[in-house]
Amino acid sequence: MNDVEMEKVIRRAIEEDIGSGDITTDNIIEEHNNGIGVVVAKEEAVVAGLKVAEKVFDEIDSELKFERKKDDGDVVKRGDVAATVTGEIRSILKAERLALNFLQRMSGIATKTRRYVEEVQGYDVRIVDTRKTTPTLRALEKWSVRIGGGHNHRMGLYDAVLIKDNHIESAGSIGEAVERVKGKIPHTAKIEVEVESIDDMKEALNSGVDVIMLDNMSLEDMKRSVDILEEEDEDDVMIEASGGITLKNVQRVAETGVDVISVGALTHQIGSVDIGLDLEF
Amino acid sequence: MNDVEMEKVIRRAIEEDIGSGDITTDNIIEEHNNGIGVVVAKEEAVVAGLKVAEKVFDEIDSELKFERKKDDGDVVKRGDVAATVTGEIRSILKAERLALNFLQRMSGIATKTRRYVEEVQGYDVRIVDTRKTTPTLRALEKWSVRIGGGHNHRMGLYDAVLIKDNHIESAGSIGEAVERVKGKIPHTAKIEVEVESIDDMKEALNSGVDVIMLDNMSLEDMKRSVDILEEEDEDDVMIEASGGITLKNVQRVAETGVDVISVGALTHQIGSVDIGLDLEF
Amino acid sequence: MNDVEMEKVIRRAIEEDIGSGDITTDNIIEEHNNGIGVVVAKEEAVVAGLKVAEKVFDEIDSELKFERKKDDGDVVKRGDVAATVTGEIRSILKAERLALNFLQRMSGIATKTRRYVEEVQGYDVRIVDTRKTTPTLRALEKWSVRIGGGHNHRMGLYDAVLIKDNHIESAGSIGEAVERVKGKIPHTAKIEVEVESIDDMKEALNSGVDVIMLDNMSLEDMKRSVDILEEEDEDDVMIEASGGITLKNVQRVAETGVDVISVGALTHQIGSVDIGLDLEF
Amino acid sequence: MNDVEMEKVIRRAIEEDIGSGDITTDNIIEEHNNGIGVVVAKEEAVVAGLKVAEKVFDEIDSELKFERKKDDGDVVKRGDVAATVTGEIRSILKAERLALNFLQRMSGIATKTRRYVEEVQGYDVRIVDTRKTTPTLRALEKWSVRIGGGHNHRMGLYDAVLIKDNHIESAGSIGEAVERVKGKIPHTAKIEVEVESIDDMKEALNSGVDVIMLDNMSLEDMKRSVDILEEEDEDDVMIEASGGITLKNVQRVAETGVDVISVGALTHQIGSVDIGLDLEF
Amino acid sequence: MNDVEMEKVIRRAIEEDIGSGDITTDNIIEEHNNGIGVVVAKEEAVVAGLKVAEKVFDEIDSELKFERKKDDGDVVKRGDVAATVTGEIRSILKAERLALNFLQRMSGIATKTRRYVEEVQGYDVRIVDTRKTTPTLRALEKWSVRIGGGHNHRMGLYDAVLIKDNHIESAGSIGEAVERVKGKIPHTAKIEVEVESIDDMKEALNSGVDVIMLDNMSLEDMKRSVDILEEEDEDDVMIEASGGITLKNVQRVAETGVDVISVGALTHQIGSVDIGLDLEF
Amino acid sequence: MNDVEMEKVIRRAIEEDIGSGDITTDNIIEEHNNGIGVVVAKEEAVVAGLKVAEKVFDEIDSELKFERKKDDGDVVKRGDVAATVTGEIRSILKAERLALNFLQRMSGIATKTRRYVEEVQGYDVRIVDTRKTTPTLRALEKWSVRIGGGHNHRMGLYDAVLIKDNHIESAGSIGEAVERVKGKIPHTAKIEVEVESIDDMKEALNSGVDVIMLDNMSLEDMKRSVDILEEEDEDDVMIEASGGITLKNVQRVAETGVDVISVGALTHQIGSVDIGLDLEF
Repeated sequence: MNDVEMEKVIRRAIEEDIGSGDITTDNIIEEHNNGIGVVVAKEEAVVAGLKVAEKVFDEIDSELKFERKKDDGDVVKRGDVAATVTGEIRSILKAERLALNFLQRMSGIATKTRRYVEEVQGYDVRIVDTRKTTPTLRALEKWSVRIGGGHNHRMGLYDAVLIKDNHIESAGSIGEAVERVKGKIPHTAKIEVEVESIDDMKEALNSGVDVIMLDNMSLEDMKRSVDILEEEDEDDVMIEASGGITLKNVQRVAETGVDVISVGALTHQIGSVDIGLDLEF
Repeated sequence: MNDVEMEKVIRRAIEEDIGSGDITTDNIIEEHNNGIGVVVAKEEAVVAGLKVAEKVFDEIDSELKFERKKDDGDVVKRGDVAATVTGEIRSILKAERLALNFLQRMSGIATKTRRYVEEVQGYDVRIVDTRKTTPTLRALEKWSVRIGGGHNHRMGLYDAVLIKDNHIESAGSIGEAVERVKGKIPHTAKIEVEVESIDDMKEALNSGVDVIMLDNMSLEDMKRSVDILEEEDEDDVMIEASGGITLKNVQRVAETGVDVISVGALTHQIGSVDIGLDLEF
Repeated sequence: MNDVEMEKVIRRAIEEDIGSGDITTDNIIEEHNNGIGVVVAKEEAVVAGLKVAEKVFDEIDSELKFERKKDDGDVVKRGDVAATVTGEIRSILKAERLALNFLQRMSGIATKTRRYVEEVQGYDVRIVDTRKTTPTLRALEKWSVRIGGGHNHRMGLYDAVLIKDNHIESAGSIGEAVERVKGKIPHTAKIEVEVESIDDMKEALNSGVDVIMLDNMSLEDMKRSVDILEEEDEDDVMIEASGGITLKNVQRVAETGVDVISVGALTHQIGSVDIGLDLEF
Repeated sequence: MNDVEMEKVIRRAIEEDIGSGDITTDNIIEEHNNGIGVVVAKEEAVVAGLKVAEKVFDEIDSELKFERKKDDGDVVKRGDVAATVTGEIRSILKAERLALNFLQRMSGIATKTRRYVEEVQGYDVRIVDTRKTTPTLRALEKWSVRIGGGHNHRMGLYDAVLIKDNHIESAGSIGEAVERVKGKIPHTAKIEVEVESIDDMKEALNSGVDVIMLDNMSLEDMKRSVDILEEEDEDDVMIEASGGITLKNVQRVAETGVDVISVGALTHQIGSVDIGLDLEF
Repeated sequence: MNDVEMEKVIRRAIEEDIGSGDITTDNIIEEHNNGIGVVVAKEEAVVAGLKVAEKVFDEIDSELKFERKKDDGDVVKRGDVAATVTGEIRSILKAERLALNFLQRMSGIATKTRRYVEEVQGYDVRIVDTRKTTPTLRALEKWSVRIGGGHNHRMGLYDAVLIKDNHIESAGSIGEAVERVKGKIPHTAKIEVEVESIDDMKEALNSGVDVIMLDNMSLEDMKRSVDILEEEDEDDVMIEASGGITLKNVQRVAETGVDVISVGALTHQIGSVDIGLDLEF
Repeated sequence: MNDVEMEKVIRRAIEEDIGSGDITTDNIIEEHNNGIGVVVAKEEAVVAGLKVAEKVFDEIDSELKFERKKDDGDVVKRGDVAATVTGEIRSILKAERLALNFLQRMSGIATKTRRYVEEVQGYDVRIVDTRKTTPTLRALEKWSVRIGGGHNHRMGLYDAVLIKDNHIESAGSIGEAVERVKGKIPHTAKIEVEVESIDDMKEALNSGVDVIMLDNMSLEDMKRSVDILEEEDEDDVMIEASGGITLKNVQRVAETGVDVISVGALTHQIGSVDIGLDLEF
């Protein structure tokens, strides 16, 4: 996510929450009243979003001083201090909920990602996200996946080709679909095809694609696909497993030897991590 | 959510996903190739977001014809058709993921809300959301809560007063905090105070607030608070229970006689509902 | 008004006035030529908008040094210095008109508000504004009302219910209109009803509304309404007088004992206060 | 004002007023309930802003049918119908206040302008506005002046040169200031100089400017300036009177023979015209 | 370029050109005066931008009827009609310059691209653009390149890796730079390295990159690089020639057998094509 | 160009280029690695855009220190250092291409303008641009023309009248067209008419216009037009030559005595100047 976009998202969020004014804080807390806000983990998690939180406080009041005690990607335990913010209590209170909303969601994604990554430790495989992200916040969510140790799939419809069943049906065959796209896209873009059978997998391989996504295949067929790749000596082609991957089966999927496992749940089942802000006067 | 804002959110989301172009669809699917996209529930849910999905398709291609088969708030079962969209396949495919992302998240919130609402059926109590929403998408999420049968808490810091522990500590007492705010805010705005003990609850009551939020209180103390209100004949004051409410305990909370139960999890633990789009050529 | 919005308004205003460039100043005044701009009141007024003016100068040239000599809400007399701004003459001249346009209008509203407030001094009543504000600048104008000692009515259609004649006619009765709205809105939002007769006032009272607006009622009926409230011991309900209120009759309205007097003229008859900027080389 | 800008202003105004939703109308008025809104003048005025009002209704609900009964610039009497709008009552009520706010302010400016124009009828002189406009709404206000029969002064700092006292002081002399600017600006831009004495007026004339603004001069000096122009046979140069012009003295100023009279009050003392919307069910 | 972005660019351009109004056309051409604007080529060219021009006319006046006589990518000769637009003369005149500015520039890029493409006809090589585009208009320019028969290089810094000399120097070696990036980027993104010698080319090849850019290499070294690729049987790796490519030498570069030739001049030396609009009353 | 607009253009350009992130630099270059970027001319040119480049670096990373070694408008020779930028290598690399794209194009325009200006040195004539600019970047391009020693024609349709053939045909005659516009436009705006014959030139002169544009006239007719002006003693009216002006004939056009020569090619045939950035570690 570029900084211009991050600033825009944060400023929109401030307008959303504060609107015509914080009628509680502005009328109760006096000016020039300083304090320290302590950002504390209330449960174990991979912390993510500290840079965003820092920017939230800065946009609300550029006089606030934010100090990171942890870095994005660090594991925090219940009670650990992730950061402190010092300055006007008014400003800290206005920014609190927004900063936490970013932190909790981003940490939620990073923490879940970390679990998947740990589950496949030792295997030469990467856990990746999908396009099933919250509309307008994809960059933040894909950043959280990276913080959690995962990798990103393509960012959108623009940076890589992913040929799915409807494209294939419309073109007539996998080969024809690949053919149509090959001569048009930037030579710097890869082509991935989603297949549902071994036969299709072979056809994709022969069409010269870069990545083959095995959609909802059995573990046996995954293994078989990996074997075919080896037999054909196509070590430049990557195999991606997709569909129905959970924490329970991800290791078995990794065992099949696939290169990439994509997990929609990383971003479409967001469990906010409990992180709070304690104010010291 | 006003229509101008809805359009802005959708257009940002389109730019995010399509960027410099859908290099797969634009290069494979030919123009003037029509089909029907069928929006199907893959699991039981309260459907929400059909108006947003309709607008997504319309923004991508104003020639697409969207027909609702269900209304926002309807319960759909696995296999139920929620809507159909007819027109250029190119356009349907480009809009698919984005429309589904909105539908799945909004339906996820509505479905979870419905579960809480059903749990307290028969009690004169409302289930409400919090400010723990996804930054920049609060209006959509609060709309989903209403679709699910829940109610909204305040929309932001601007439309109602909510005095919390830090405000009280800064003012010196609940009475002083209420006093400061009372003379300043619009006469159309209500004042709510968050309390953690029966004593504080009484002080809040005497300060003349409109709503008292019982934060993480025991069921006994909730009941006691309701009784005090009745004893004092303060039927204009509302009692809100908050903190640690789950599907497991929400009914017991309702039994205490509180007027409002606020549940952060409605929006900060978002489980996307599985809704798909089947394309018919 | 939140700071993000204030910055946006000011930046739009700068683009409007400077456009492709200040072809007079840029071509005549040399760079690195410093001076002092003195913001002087040319007539007695309540000054308002100094924070906005400061931001205007800062956006034009962040090197300019703005010093407040008065605070928003202070009464200034002809000749009083409200602020000074030091730095490049080029920058001061480019910002001059825009800073003054904000100051003059905001001070105009604050000054008029102050007159109404003084007129009802000694009565337990608040002077409030309406939604008759300049489109897109409501937050600035409602802020000016507060600076002048007045209070705000609801900020828009979103933060409080105001049931008017057309709503009542559409619903069938006041009671039915209130009923429809009560179960839907946030429990933190108040309900106000506009009535034109004592009978309607009574119906509103029985419907359990929070505020009753007496629209264009006689002084006698206003008094009668206040009495009814007392008789019914409904001290939680507020009475608002509205319609045709002027500086001439506002005191008599206050005498009736109403709680709130809303005055559209505060913002829809804007008399700019004469404030100038004298440049010292 | 270009249409893109008009749409942007209106959409911002809708977001300002409706925000997260019109909680009164949305909860009381049922869908598919049609009516007619009749825009009626409550006092005599020059109507202005009908195109803007039409666009407001269209942006709120493109199904609404707006019919003009009067044109911008027409004089309406109390009771005259300026326009009607037919369609969903919900939509009409949501748009009402905003449409009226535009109409009332723009008509206020047009009506005041018309009074000045009528006052100088028969004289070969134009009434013009200034840059003392409401920040961000200048185009709308200058449009209102034209509708009222007045003319516009320059639109901003970018489209014409106006050399004022501070520019002259900084340059050293009128001649030097004109010299500096002449070689730099587009050959399509005019140069105006503000002078405070007959001597300065002569110097400006000799410097080859296009327009001379007489700032706060006596009627005698204005007349003298006009005479000098005639004596010098400089009929291409225009004389503009400025400063302290009111309805009371504008005719006498016109008598002096000046070409242009600029009146800041056209836009900085805005009296909204009373225009209402009556709803027929 | 997605449609939302195209609309935004056009609307900004309209505001830029029309600003506070077209003071010539609005004051001379009467309303309801219809005519036909004929878009005519004044020289031979590949026409590009007709979709953009159509949208310009539509944004200025949605009543205008635009009819394409040629398609983007067609070759037009002097005198050929590319399109006609029918409707209000006022609207046609306001849109004319802007529509032509888009058409002329886009056609300029497409025409130049076509020349390069024709020059290498018969060779299995693609002509691609670079990031040397006009800031904020890259999508339009890269679209023009495609219309002219060329291909796009990466769209920006986000969709493909391009390791240049400074990256290599900072990492220590090509191998190390590739290593750092390989494990981090989406598996759908390709890696390209810019090399300046045969040795570096070999190192890049061994590092497992997808594309090797030969920067300012001699024809001999280009040929040598192609040979090495064949010797190593690395037919999945592409060779891109870059630097100093002109119409004069592009064929000789193609002869070396490289896969891609990137030409900065396609977009950074823009010769507008002469296309005019003739108005028929 | 005002600073707000400049910042907006640059921020849009950053989003365009960096998008979801610079996946090369972010993954290869380590943080806290400083260097110096040296902006060097690779060919002789008039440098323009240094202020824009400085702002680009500042927006990417406000810690970067930019030092100008040349000023906008200076002539640089191959090898001359125009500026240096010191700080994080990551930031310098991210900003490099964008800063150069601005510099190269603006310098291209300034350099071409300078050639025209030098060609007519000694003549009392100004070289001006047209509206044939890159959509949305007109202010930058017209600024470049001024830096190159040229002058600007009107900025858009809003700041001066330019009556062309279609306006004349629609009005019936030059005189009628001028008449219609004269009474409507600001008195600060000039009127220019485009004529194609001596007869039309005389009619324009008699209509009292400020500038006469000779469109594609022969050198003899240009001379004749200048003579007529002198004969009529109309030294306030300016003559502008337009159409088919090239570096080859511009001097002969100047010799005819016209006041202004407009050259579309200044901005519609943009040759980027070769300026590079050398990084020192």
